[in-house]
Amino acid sequence: MSVPGDLICGMWGTTHLTLWRMTGDEGAPVPNIQDSLSGPGAAKINREDFERVVFDLVEPWLDEGISQDILLAGMVGSTIGWVDVPYVACPSTPFFECHSMQCRDAHIYIVPGMSCRNEDGAPNVMRGEETEIAGWLALDPLRREGAHLVVIPGTHTKWVRVEGGIVTGFLTSVAGELFAGFRQSGVIIPIDVELGVEPGSSFLEAVVTAQNNGSLVHDIFSVRARQVLDAEDVTSAAERLSGLIIGADISGALQAMRDGSDVDSVTLIGAPHLQRRYEVALEAFDIKAQTLDAELAATAGLWAIAQRGGLSHAG
Amino acid sequence: MSVPGDLICGMWGTTHLTLWRMTGDEGAPVPNIQDSLSGPGAAKINREDFERVVFDLVEPWLDEGISQDILLAGMVGSTIGWVDVPYVACPSTPFFECHSMQCRDAHIYIVPGMSCRNEDGAPNVMRGEETEIAGWLALDPLRREGAHLVVIPGTHTKWVRVEGGIVTGFLTSVAGELFAGFRQSGVIIPIDVELGVEPGSSFLEAVVTAQNNGSLVHDIFSVRARQVLDAEDVTSAAERLSGLIIGADISGALQAMRDGSDVDSVTLIGAPHLQRRYEVALEAFDIKAQTLDAELAATAGLWAIAQRGGLSHAG
Repeated sequence: MSVPGDLICGMWGTTHLTLWRMTGDEGAPVPNIQDSLSGPGAAKINREDFERVVFDLVEPWLDEGISQDILLAGMVGSTIGWVDVPYVACPSTPFFECHSMQCRDAHIYIVPGMSCRNEDGAPNVMRGEETEIAGWLALDPLRREGAHLVVIPGTHTKWVRVEGGIVTGFLTSVAGELFAGFRQSGVIIPIDVELGVEPGSSFLEAVVTAQNNGSLVHDIFSVRARQVLDAEDVTSAAERLSGLIIGADISGALQAMRDGSDVDSVTLIGAPHLQRRYEVALEAFDIKAQTLDAELAATAGLWAIAQRGGLSHAG
Repeated sequence: MSVPGDLICGMWGTTHLTLWRMTGDEGAPVPNIQDSLSGPGAAKINREDFERVVFDLVEPWLDEGISQDILLAGMVGSTIGWVDVPYVACPSTPFFECHSMQCRDAHIYIVPGMSCRNEDGAPNVMRGEETEIAGWLALDPLRREGAHLVVIPGTHTKWVRVEGGIVTGFLTSVAGELFAGFRQSGVIIPIDVELGVEPGSSFLEAVVTAQNNGSLVHDIFSVRARQVLDAEDVTSAAERLSGLIIGADISGALQAMRDGSDVDSVTLIGAPHLQRRYEVALEAFDIKAQTLDAELAATAGLWAIAQRGGLSHAG
C-alpha cells in the first residue's frame, strides 16, 4: 500500500462517520490532515449502502489520484457495519493486521475491534477506541513502557489498561447512556435541563458521595428527593446526577483496573465537556489525568496502524 | 367520622387511581371490599380536576348514603396532586393525622407521605408506601415488636425499616426505572424483549455477580457484550440485566438498612412478577422473604389509618 505518502482514513461510529484525507512522512507520528468530510453513522444505513456512502464522499479525492487506500475503524466492522470483522482478543498490540478487501478500484482496510474477558469470564468489546489507543501510543514512545490507564468517556465509557505497549484489558461503563436515560424519562431530573461546561459544586459533592462507598442505584433517587424536600434547583440536581454516575464509574473502574498495582499515568481522550468532568472527578480520587484531543488520537492512530504494516493487500 | 362502619378509600398513584368502598367492624384488621373503581393517575390530570374526577367516580356510592368520608393516599398529596400535604419525618408511626378538608358534602382526608434523611444528610421521600406499611403492621400485632424490613418493589423500589412499630428510615432504589430505561433505549437489550414470570437461570447468575462486589455501571455492558461475543439469546440477556439491577439493589440496600444488626423478618409487597424476582434474588443472599399482596396491604392500611383515629375533621 501507498503509506507513507497519502491515505484516506475514516472513523465510522454508530451515529457519525468522519473521513480524513491525510498526507505525511515516514516515521512522523502526526499526519497532515488535508481535508475532512462527514457522513451518516453505521446505525443509520443498511449493510448494502456502506460502499455507496464511502465512494460518494471520497470520489473527488480519488479523482485527484492521491490514494487508492481507504482505512476505516469503528462500527464499520461490526454486525451493523459493512462487513463483520472478528475482534482481536486481549492481550494484544493495538497495531493490527486489518481486514482488507478490494472494492471498485480501491483497497478497503477495516480495523478489527478488540475483545477481552475479566476474571469472572464476563466479556467486553470495543470498536474504534483501540485506534485512539494506537494513536496515544504512537504520539509518545515513552508510553510503550510501564502501566497506563486510558479513559475514553462517552455513551459507553471505556477504561483501557495498557502495559508495555500492549492492551491487557478494558472495561466499559454505561455512564453516558445512564445520564441520557434519566434525562429522557424526566422523573429524576427535568427533561430540558442542560449542564454547563464547567461542573458545578453539587457535581463534586456527588462524586465524593460515590467515592465513599456509595450505591448508585440508591443514591440516584436522592437527586429527586432533594428537589422535592430541599428545593434544590434543577441545574444543581443535574450536576448531582452527573457526579453520582461519573463518581460510580471512576470508583468501580479503579477498583477493577488498578489490579492491586499503581499505574504510571491516566489519560483522558474525549469530547472537551466530558473530559473536563472526568478530570475534575478524578482529582477527587487524587488522580491527575492528562488529556489528549480525540480527533488527534484517532487520526494519529489510523496513521500509525497504516504505517506499522498493519495494512496488507492479502484479504 | 363514620369509621368503623363504612368508608370510601383510594390509592392515588402517579399513573393510576384505585378507589374502594369498604365496610367492616371495629377492631377488624381487614375491611370488606364492597366495590372498587379505577381512574387516572395524578400525573395525568391537572390540580383543578382532582375534585371532579373523585366525585364523578364515587357519586353512585355517595347517593346510596353509605359514607361522606373519603380517605386518599399516594401522590394525591404531592406537588402534582390535589393539595400539597407536607411529609411526616421519620422516625414516626405510619398511623398519621391526615390532612382534612371539606369538599361538596364530603370530608376528604389525605394521608401525608413520609420523609427521612440518611447519615450523610441525603433525603428520601415516599407517598403511598407508608400506607402499605400501616396495613402490614395492622394485619399482625406481632410486627409491632422487633426490627423488620419491608421491601416494596416497583419503578422506585422502597426499602423500609420498621422497629417497634415505628418507621425508622427508608431507602429508594431506581431499579424499575433503570430496567425500563435500558429496554427503551435498545442498546443493551432489544426494545421488544419480555421477561417471563419465573426468573431464568441467567437472572440468578447475575444476582450472584452483583452480590460479589459487582459494579452495576460496569457490569451492565457485559449484557450487550455477551450477545455480541457469546451469542447469548435476548431473553437470557434481559434476565441477566434484571438480575444485575435487582442484585445491586439488594446488595446496596442490605448494607445500608441492616445497620450492623440483623432483622427479624423481610417482607415483600408488590406485583406478583416483581415479588417473585426479589424473592428468588433474596434467597441468594440467604434471606427467606415473606410476601404480602399489595392490594391487601393498601386496603388494610387505609382501614387501619381511619380506625386508629388518624382521621379528624379538624383541617
